[in-house]
Order: sequence, then structure tokens, then C-alpha cells
Amino acid sequence: MASRISRLFNIKYPIIQGGMIWCSGWELASAVSNAGGLGLIGAGSMTPELLKEHIQKTKQNTNKVFGVNIPLIYKHSDEIIKIVIDQGVKVVFTSAGNPKTWTPELKKHGIKVAHVVANSKFAIKAQDADVDAIVIEGFEAGGHNGREETTTFTLIPTVRQHIVKPLIAAGGIASGKSMLAAMILGADGVQIGSRFVASNESSAHENFKQAVVAANEGDTYLALKKLIPVRLIKNEFCKQIITAEIKGQTVEQLSEMLGRGRAKAGMFDGDLHNGELEIGQISSIINNIKPVKNIIDDIILEYNVARQQISHTKFDI
Amino acid sequence: MASRISRLFNIKYPIIQGGMIWCSGWELASAVSNAGGLGLIGAGSMTPELLKEHIQKTKQNTNKVFGVNIPLIYKHSDEIIKIVIDQGVKVVFTSAGNPKTWTPELKKHGIKVAHVVANSKFAIKAQDADVDAIVIEGFEAGGHNGREETTTFTLIPTVRQHIVKPLIAAGGIASGKSMLAAMILGADGVQIGSRFVASNESSAHENFKQAVVAANEGDTYLALKKLIPVRLIKNEFCKQIITAEIKGQTVEQLSEMLGRGRAKAGMFDGDLHNGELEIGQISSIINNIKPVKNIIDDIILEYNVARQQISHTKFDI
Repeated sequence: MASRISRLFNIKYPIIQGGMIWCSGWELASAVSNAGGLGLIGAGSMTPELLKEHIQKTKQNTNKVFGVNIPLIYKHSDEIIKIVIDQGVKVVFTSAGNPKTWTPELKKHGIKVAHVVANSKFAIKAQDADVDAIVIEGFEAGGHNGREETTTFTLIPTVRQHIVKPLIAAGGIASGKSMLAAMILGADGVQIGSRFVASNESSAHENFKQAVVAANEGDTYLALKKLIPVRLIKNEFCKQIITAEIKGQTVEQLSEMLGRGRAKAGMFDGDLHNGELEIGQISSIINNIKPVKNIIDDIILEYNVARQQISHTKFDI
Repeated sequence: MASRISRLFNIKYPIIQGGMIWCSGWELASAVSNAGGLGLIGAGSMTPELLKEHIQKTKQNTNKVFGVNIPLIYKHSDEIIKIVIDQGVKVVFTSAGNPKTWTPELKKHGIKVAHVVANSKFAIKAQDADVDAIVIEGFEAGGHNGREETTTFTLIPTVRQHIVKPLIAAGGIASGKSMLAAMILGADGVQIGSRFVASNESSAHENFKQAVVAANEGDTYLALKKLIPVRLIKNEFCKQIITAEIKGQTVEQLSEMLGRGRAKAGMFDGDLHNGELEIGQISSIINNIKPVKNIIDDIILEYNVARQQISHTKFDI
């Protein structure tokens, strides 16, 4: 079976690795592509020079297709677009910006383009911009997120009503059962973030990986809704933000509390106290750090078993 | 195929109708039970006398099993427990309270007991109280909700790790595909609320039913988190609450804004401007008002088709 997503990107399984800042370098991206998924280098935390280096190392470490994730609001995004074209990257995932800006240029160079959204309105805009696929991200997803708080369970069937293009579901997916559930709800493939943070190959700091493994239900929170909403582990920093938000602190006050560099401090440098630790709710079922190949093999095995089990259930009408 | 939930309650399909205040009287409960699901009378908005009348009318209108939903914090709950025992009701769903208080007494009278929770901690407490089934309600559900904001997609597999008793998933479920997805994630059955509000037989005011049909993505919000969180349609009243919350208004100020009787005003009397309109995010895919029998038949048909389609997908490893 090849889903539309597998065919589109020429990959074995319709599993896309989230292009997460500070966690998704060449090592993670090449491991995911080698294991049959689509690896993405997260350009949002790289200078253009560093990205070029990561693209080259990824090419050295896999002969499979891989992509680059580009947040369009990132200050270097124009330069990064030029690099991915020059370097012959085959797939680009864009987010946080207008998909009309770069999609025609990228497609002109034969690059497949997916765009990340959190509601039907922007999914329709992405479809109108003629992207090749649309990522729809639910409220439970880690990192930056939509303001409407629509969950994966609601988002997939709702967006599916309006969109004919291939849909990639993100948020809450870390297992074969959740991949199957997402596809039943109407997705053509899945994007998985949190599960890959806790892999041997992710560039997350070991402290952060251990924090993901330790995280349970209720341990993450969608904070900073007055700025750009972001789902974080409720560490000391996040708790300070929650307290400030309950008191009704302003955008300016919250911006000052946030300061700069907290995402790097938390996820890359391992400051669990003062850093931003971006992770999804589904960290509640992530209980180990393992190699990417094992993660993907386990997901596919569980998918096949769940599919087989459900095939025995049928209701008489 | 009979799931554990179907066997437990002696029903055809593992579909439980949410026992929603102001919407779930004898007409809805008996229609759901007649159509093969489990109908529940919502006692939380009834005086003991009125509940007795609804139980008797339900008995007159179905020979199938039905139940009563009792929020344990409700001031009449002790009296209502006595009524359901005296009236020979076979099933009780409890919520918002300690499951240990009444479960032994109810079970002594041969009544099956399910308890509603929003996280693993309280699911384990309910299991320890020896309830017969546990309802786990995700963040996307309408009405009163948990504080941890765990979504259905995350909640089902997370709670399943800890619980052997039958699990009923609630929140975001309004179609056969979502029922199948919930069961793949680990549920034994589903509880459906919003879809039944927009049925011919619900006692919701016609204005409210139309508002549910009109609601789209992003049109609901989990408000009043400083009191008891409740998911509402963002009408004028809800918008006032949101504004007050952003400003950091206190529990006392919010309580005063809420006042009394807004749920009845909105859902039963049809005041779309000033009333509380409790509904789930999945109202985004509810586009019509139809008879309960059609709702359930359509869900089962879609479930069977989706199950059949997915049985053709298998990945080679």
C-alpha cells in the first residue's frame, strides 16, 4: 500500500519527521529518511551557513529523499530558500507565513512543497497557493501552535471537508495506533515530532530528552497565547509564565519575561529550569529514548497489528 | 462483534449518549436506547420529582436498557440516587465527585456504574472504586471539562496504559470514523454528546440546535478555567468572559459575571446572546438536525465502511 503522501515524496511510509528547531539536524533527518520516512532538517534554528553544512551532511548520510522545514517569519528565510534551491533539496515544508510567497518559485525548481496550518481557513489558502500537501496541526502538538485550540481529533475531519489535496496530520501522534487513527479520520500521512525528540539521533540535549521521557499527562501547557502560542513542559519558566498570564500581564510584560534565546537554552543547552522546552502532550506515552529505526519499525508494526485487529470488528445494522 | 461495553450494558452498539443538562430528557434517552445505543437522562438539570417523571416516561417509550447521568456535586444528588434505585434504573453514570461515595450502594442494587474523568489519576481512583466502566473526556468535549486540557487523541492511549476496566472515550466523536479512531486508540466504546444535541429528540431549544449546526472551527472556547472549565460557543456572553479572563479578572469577578441560570437560559430557553451554550469542538462537522435513529445508523454505516477501507492498507516492513 502506498498512500498519496508516500507517492508524493517517494518514501516507503507516510511518516514525516517534524522539522523542530534545535532537535532536527542532519543526523535525525538522515536517520528518518534511511528508515523509510521523510526526514526534515529544522532550518528555524540555523544560520544559512550552518543549514548548508547540515544539508551536505544529510546527503552524505542518506541516498533517500529528505527535506528542509522553513518558518517563513524567520529572518533568514529568503536566504534559506535560495540555499535549498541551490543545494537541490527535493522537499520543503513551510510554516508561519504566506504560502503564496515562495511556493511558485520552489515548485518551478521541482521542489515538493508542504505548508503547515492549524485550521481550515489557512488550509484553503494553502490549497489555493497550490502547495503539494498540507500539514494540519492540532492543539496537542508541541511548540508553536494555533490560537483556535482545535484538537487533532476535530481538526482532521473538519479540514478534510474542505480540502482535496493530501493532508498530513500532526499533534498527538507517536505510535502505530495513533497513525492509523489519524488516517481513518481523513489524513493521508502523519507528522511526528515529540517521539523523534526522544531518539538517539535527535540533537536535543540529553537533559531535554530525559525530560520528555519523564513528562506525564498534564505536564505540558499551551503558554504565551498573547504572543505566539507555544506548548511547553511546565518547568519553572513555564510556571512563571502561567502565573503571569493568570494575573492578566500584558504582551509587553510577557515579552520581557520571555526574553531571547530560551528555546536554545532549554532544548539544546539542557537548562531545564529556565529554558523553553517545546514538546507535545503525547510525551505522556513516550517512555524511552531509542534509535530512529526502532521508532519507525515499531510504529509500522503496531499500525499493521491494529489494522488487522480492527478488521475483525463489524456491526450488524 | 460485541465490545466489552455492549456486553456490559446489554446494548447493540457501544454508543453512549451524553447525559447533558437541559438537552437529555426522556425523549432523547428512549430514542437512543431504541436505536441500539445507551440513552442517558441528564439528571443535573432536573428536580428529583421531574427526574422521576422522566424515568417513568422513558420506561413507557423503550423496553431497552437506559441510564441516568448524575453530577455528584449537584445539590439533589443524594435524593436522586435513591430515586434511581427505587425506580429500578439499570445504569448510572456519575461525574464531578468521588466515585467511592455511591458506587458500592448502586452496585449492591445491581446497577452498572460508570464514572467520568479527564485524566489517568482519577481513572485509577474510579477503577479502585470498582466502577464497571470509566468515561475519559478529552479537552475538545462540550460542557464541563478537566483542567489539564488533555485531548482525546492523547488521553485514550495514555489512560489505557493504566486501566484494565472498559474505557468509554468522549470528546470530538460525532461520526463513524471518529468512533473507529477512538476504538483503535484504545477505547471500548464512545460517548457522544454534541451530535445528539442536534437531534429531533433532544430537549435543547431550537435556537440552540441551530447554533450547533451553524458552529464552525474555532467557534467554541474552554472558558471559566478559574471556576469550573466549560466549553461554550463563543457568543456574546462567552466573549465577555474571554475579555475578562485576558484582563486577569478574579474568581469573584468571574462568578459575578456568570451569575445563575445561564445554562438554562442558553440551551433550554434559547437565549443565544446571554446564555451559556455548552457544546463540543466537533460541532464543526455537525451540519444538520436529524432523528436519533438516523444519527446512529449513519455512524454505524460509516464505521463499517471505514473499517473495511482500512483493512486494505498494510505496510511491508
